[in-house]
Amino acid sequence: MSFDTLDELRAILAEMPGPDATALEGAAARNGQLTKPPGALGRLEDLAIWYAGWRGDARPAISAPQVIVFAGNHGVAARGVSAFPPEVTVQMVANFEHGGAAINQLAKAFGARMDVVPLDLDVPTADFTTGPAMSEADVVAALRAGWDGVDPAADLLVVGEMGIGNTTSAAAIAAHLFGGDAGAWTGRGTGVEGDALATKTQVVADGLAMHADAGDGLDVLMRLGGRELAGMVGAMARARFLSIPVIMDGFICTAAAACLEHTATGALDHVVAGHQSAEGAHARMLQALGKTPLLSLGLRLGEGSGAALAIGVLKGAVACHSGMATFAEAGVADG
Amino acid sequence: MSFDTLDELRAILAEMPGPDATALEGAAARNGQLTKPPGALGRLEDLAIWYAGWRGDARPAISAPQVIVFAGNHGVAARGVSAFPPEVTVQMVANFEHGGAAINQLAKAFGARMDVVPLDLDVPTADFTTGPAMSEADVVAALRAGWDGVDPAADLLVVGEMGIGNTTSAAAIAAHLFGGDAGAWTGRGTGVEGDALATKTQVVADGLAMHADAGDGLDVLMRLGGRELAGMVGAMARARFLSIPVIMDGFICTAAAACLEHTATGALDHVVAGHQSAEGAHARMLQALGKTPLLSLGLRLGEGSGAALAIGVLKGAVACHSGMATFAEAGVADG
Repeated sequence: MSFDTLDELRAILAEMPGPDATALEGAAARNGQLTKPPGALGRLEDLAIWYAGWRGDARPAISAPQVIVFAGNHGVAARGVSAFPPEVTVQMVANFEHGGAAINQLAKAFGARMDVVPLDLDVPTADFTTGPAMSEADVVAALRAGWDGVDPAADLLVVGEMGIGNTTSAAAIAAHLFGGDAGAWTGRGTGVEGDALATKTQVVADGLAMHADAGDGLDVLMRLGGRELAGMVGAMARARFLSIPVIMDGFICTAAAACLEHTATGALDHVVAGHQSAEGAHARMLQALGKTPLLSLGLRLGEGSGAALAIGVLKGAVACHSGMATFAEAGVADG
Repeated sequence: MSFDTLDELRAILAEMPGPDATALEGAAARNGQLTKPPGALGRLEDLAIWYAGWRGDARPAISAPQVIVFAGNHGVAARGVSAFPPEVTVQMVANFEHGGAAINQLAKAFGARMDVVPLDLDVPTADFTTGPAMSEADVVAALRAGWDGVDPAADLLVVGEMGIGNTTSAAAIAAHLFGGDAGAWTGRGTGVEGDALATKTQVVADGLAMHADAGDGLDVLMRLGGRELAGMVGAMARARFLSIPVIMDGFICTAAAACLEHTATGALDHVVAGHQSAEGAHARMLQALGKTPLLSLGLRLGEGSGAALAIGVLKGAVACHSGMATFAEAGVADG
């Protein structure tokens, strides 16, 4: 299964599988028999049942998480929208490859394989205030890099990103998909303030005006997105077809996810929100998507860092679900 | 260092060590050089520096967490304050020992050693509505079980509890220490409702009235607490003297911690709140202690489960702090 055009991907997404009803039922039944008062593990219980449903296994384990970090460069970076120069993207890719970034430590701490996918860093996307960020061929290539990057043997996927200028892209996507003006979705990113923040907001507003007639989520992704956002979309979509649940990261990842949901309703049902970022508009974007974050610790780094941290929560949930004794097994009185 | 009376413990607590200033400074300096925008790891940065300070190591690791679950029985359980019969305490201790409980799975998932300390389960504490729950000898014995239970080689401690009836005890402690009426601090516990909840609230109110003249936190612990609460207090206090940071669990653990803080101000500076429980008054108790929880996932199980889940967060924070490359090491432009 693959695609050479956006329409071919749209056709694939129209046939998304749902969770396994038998596994969901079996997991819910098992949850009710475990040695704890009903509901006492709170959201961990819902998470374990959700995970079981998407894995098609009523008593699953998490043993092979995969983290993929996509990197891309943005034409709008030349407009001064970031506190860091665009060269930092390629420098950080080297840092990922040498194991020195935050995401490397988190992937290792939670037993995840980590892959880095730099996407044509020498060729920034076009400035979206003057035209589409990418051609269809460009966005399809990045979507396929994501699609092909998912390890079919993984049992949990985290997607993250690196790309100087990409909160600008994400803000423009969110404003287009969810409505509201540029200022409502534009935030500090890696740390812009004052005049730079005003410039960033104006760039988002200009992009919105230029692409007011954008169509579905994939069209918005092509016009206002970036290669690393498309990579994340491709990977999240592929995970659906491989029965691999996904933990979504922060502002940029969620904007990418929103493109997927606005292409095919329900396309994020196998995706849980790992955390709520400190980037101001992230909470609103999560609410618009109906996602409640697992963590809220003020992170605003990207790289998949918040989602990787949430691997621990999901591992804990699944470990309890699959490892606990039942009341009958333990000889404990059931209330 | 040990104690045979509450006054001897009070004298020990009066000489509590603080964090290592050199390690704190070194950790803060290192944090500022890591390959991320300033502050982008949010609370993880504060946590790592806090942990470094208490460990006395500017670049620490977490490799030997210990979970201790204390169990005790409560005289007030005979008053019908719980949804479960008191026999469940000993049954759950067996479940802990056989590895079948939630806390076993979480300890294993996060690489923690787990110890179970049942405290005179055949001898419930006295009904605190008619007199002190424990004699001084009783409470000192339980405090010492906690004190002696901490592994000096541990580098992180989680304390948890099991004891049918102990949310009643915790509610009475909180109401005495923080003020407010019984109803404001009494909640569903393992799942009491309706008439049983009214009974539970009345038992808390009766205990409050009986012990209105209680003195410091250790006196409150003796009169309204239970052996497992005293075990947690002893363990948290000992950890301070062993440079072992502590993750606090939910409602009952926090009530025990409050006894410690109300005995010696600042006695919880080496303690972080692992989570906010679904037990209604837990959030208010955390606020009164100035503690912001790491997680809020609707857990209300006890056993140390919420704190154990937070081991993952702390491990992630310390892994980033100690494992990341600096801007200079990675050759990344620093803004």
